[in-house]
Amino acid sequence: MQTILILGAGKSSVFLIEYLLETAVPKKRKIIVADVSVEIAAEKLKDHGSGKAVCINLEDEEKRKALIEESDVVISMLPAFLHPIIAKDCLELGKHFFSASYESGEMREMKSEIEAKNLLFLNECGLDPGLDHMSAMKIINDEKKTGNRVTSFKSYTGGLLAPESENNPWKYKFTWNPRNVVLAGQGTSRFIQNGELKYIPYHMLYRRLEKIRFDKVGDFEGYPNRDSLSYRKIYGLNEIPTLLRGTLRRAGFCQSWDVFVQLGITDDSFQMELPTGFSHRMFFNSFLPFHETKSVEEKLQELLPWVGSEILEKIEWLGMFSDSPIPKKTGSPASILEEILKEKWKLGHQDKDMIVMQHLFEIETPEGKKDIVSSLVCKGVNQEHTAMAKTVGLPLAIAVDLFLDGKINVRGLHVPVLSEIYEPILGALEKEGIVFEERIKLL
Amino acid sequence: MQTILILGAGKSSVFLIEYLLETAVPKKRKIIVADVSVEIAAEKLKDHGSGKAVCINLEDEEKRKALIEESDVVISMLPAFLHPIIAKDCLELGKHFFSASYESGEMREMKSEIEAKNLLFLNECGLDPGLDHMSAMKIINDEKKTGNRVTSFKSYTGGLLAPESENNPWKYKFTWNPRNVVLAGQGTSRFIQNGELKYIPYHMLYRRLEKIRFDKVGDFEGYPNRDSLSYRKIYGLNEIPTLLRGTLRRAGFCQSWDVFVQLGITDDSFQMELPTGFSHRMFFNSFLPFHETKSVEEKLQELLPWVGSEILEKIEWLGMFSDSPIPKKTGSPASILEEILKEKWKLGHQDKDMIVMQHLFEIETPEGKKDIVSSLVCKGVNQEHTAMAKTVGLPLAIAVDLFLDGKINVRGLHVPVLSEIYEPILGALEKEGIVFEERIKLL
Repeated sequence: MQTILILGAGKSSVFLIEYLLETAVPKKRKIIVADVSVEIAAEKLKDHGSGKAVCINLEDEEKRKALIEESDVVISMLPAFLHPIIAKDCLELGKHFFSASYESGEMREMKSEIEAKNLLFLNECGLDPGLDHMSAMKIINDEKKTGNRVTSFKSYTGGLLAPESENNPWKYKFTWNPRNVVLAGQGTSRFIQNGELKYIPYHMLYRRLEKIRFDKVGDFEGYPNRDSLSYRKIYGLNEIPTLLRGTLRRAGFCQSWDVFVQLGITDDSFQMELPTGFSHRMFFNSFLPFHETKSVEEKLQELLPWVGSEILEKIEWLGMFSDSPIPKKTGSPASILEEILKEKWKLGHQDKDMIVMQHLFEIETPEGKKDIVSSLVCKGVNQEHTAMAKTVGLPLAIAVDLFLDGKINVRGLHVPVLSEIYEPILGALEKEGIVFEERIKLL
Repeated sequence: MQTILILGAGKSSVFLIEYLLETAVPKKRKIIVADVSVEIAAEKLKDHGSGKAVCINLEDEEKRKALIEESDVVISMLPAFLHPIIAKDCLELGKHFFSASYESGEMREMKSEIEAKNLLFLNECGLDPGLDHMSAMKIINDEKKTGNRVTSFKSYTGGLLAPESENNPWKYKFTWNPRNVVLAGQGTSRFIQNGELKYIPYHMLYRRLEKIRFDKVGDFEGYPNRDSLSYRKIYGLNEIPTLLRGTLRRAGFCQSWDVFVQLGITDDSFQMELPTGFSHRMFFNSFLPFHETKSVEEKLQELLPWVGSEILEKIEWLGMFSDSPIPKKTGSPASILEEILKEKWKLGHQDKDMIVMQHLFEIETPEGKKDIVSSLVCKGVNQEHTAMAKTVGLPLAIAVDLFLDGKINVRGLHVPVLSEIYEPILGALEKEGIVFEERIKLL
């Protein structure tokens, strides 16, 4: 009997739990799902005989450790800052640890002890980070093996709406954490292009876009993520002239979003304290210059002359020019904007999400140059079975399944950039419909 | 015998020490100047019989308290973060405390104890904060007393070059802390204009300028400081429709400086690690988009179309387009820029600095409206006797002198917004040549 402990039964755990339950009986496995809400944990297990829902208070060290003690493998779906606590318990109790979050400095400090105890701690095994690593490393390593040289690698990912649900002027709704969407891109983006280090400040980000095309779902635009430079080491591409990782939005989104960025409405660094009855229009106006007679709309177009009627309509659709009171009076501009958007960008019952990912490679071969474009499109089925939950949860579920089956034998602290890890996972993902389509163009 | 302890003998202490020494003999006062460098302390005292230079290690609590114990009044010219330590000692030992720094939260926690011990703790008694409070409050209170209503108050201050020393294309050199100059304006500026709350993000700041004119020294431009809103309470102007505090630069400076802001070169939020031999041109280029053939200059003008030949010349004058290596390879963009500028914006031996301050009031009187413009221009004498040292040090020296003479009898925790404090100080400052010129226009 093998016991898997899943900590956290939120939205992202749906596919993870279902996948592991599916083979639990034949593989003689017990799945314990622990959450602060035992109801949510139970709901996900759907009365499956191999499942057990548990209520957990993470501060209760004794109970936490008892749960980990009775497991063979722990999967943490908790917020990232809690991972070190769980990982330390696993280390102490000699249990394997899996997560979809970034490998932290605290995790790295445990490296030699993880190795000494012959455990596997596998992080960054979800979508992004996760699937991006695996799908990219497969191409990179295959090309390297045949003696080719990767001279350019750009990789873009987006968590968006399925085209059939793009029924508002922004063609956008919140399919994941709204706060992260509002703050997306803050900081300075760093990457390398044709051997030149490049830095883009936040206020320039939404104008320095690349058009990214998907055969079946059309055009998107990508902007660089914060730190692409560190991926040179992670991917073993220390000398690569071009490396850029970015985020995708539907074509046209970024220029309109840039209005909020330019005006400072996405600022999260200070608290506003606004009077009762402060309207959407007053809120928007507070980021525009004063003028005795000009309207908010006129002042916006004067300050940002590139704002045309199409952008203006999008801003108006959000209710920004209305006289109704804003939903929140105190907080950062970003948090007030988030409250306004939450109403407007709320998913409807029929809405489906979509994950898009594209890797663009330039390769030098002994025969000449070639381009490889590798694309993934994954659409959600409904609001429970989202593309986000599928692409985050399945890589993790499959990794644990393969590990317990003895088909992944790696030990130590890892992210899935080793072929022993990503090859079997990518194989199993294909069977679940998570398939990258590759186009190769010889130049 | 009265003993004054001055902690910190840096550049800003010159006038402070000289002023207090001048009357030390007739007023039977002893001036102890304590610094980490006893040489620097001694140098400022110029062998005056009433002065005593002391070496101080602030971590040596025993010696620190012994020094404070033998004094009647303590003036702290130390970095602001050290003030709470000294203030606590003063509180414990029953000594009065004076500084030119902002009144901190920690200081406010001591308020009731300061009052209980009948001490005076006077902060914000330098230039800005200090002279700005005093000169503004005199006008505000005088107008209020005659039943008039202040409807608009804007106040601008600049630490700049005397016109005769403006001998580079930027008409600017570092006359105070270079780091603060490079980071100036970061954050979001908040003020109120005609009853409308206004917020300006950093990347918009250097385009939303007001022209400020001085009869004798010409045109400047002002941009809003970070937080003007809190001054409504400090100045007792809670209902004022327009309140803005800002910083002055010589006309033309801001648009050129905005190039660095727009490109992200003033960013202090992340560390660059650049290879050996990285040139000024490569550094500048790393903030521009990649292009196969276009030059750095062309790319700059394409990205920021408002950059004309005049701005381009200023950037070039700083050596930004040169192939020589940058002076510092690791650090934030802002810190690397600071190193580059330190060389170029270094004061020459003949250079003099200048302080400019202007208050602009709009007042409603029973007879109609009037404008008051109150301006201060203070030029430095040489590199030791700077306008900065004079305008920071004299208000503080005079406050202490008047206090010891029994001409300021206030007790408790204060900033100089009370007439009992600012009236005698402004009077004494006039004798030292620090005079505001007032122009009143009836509308």
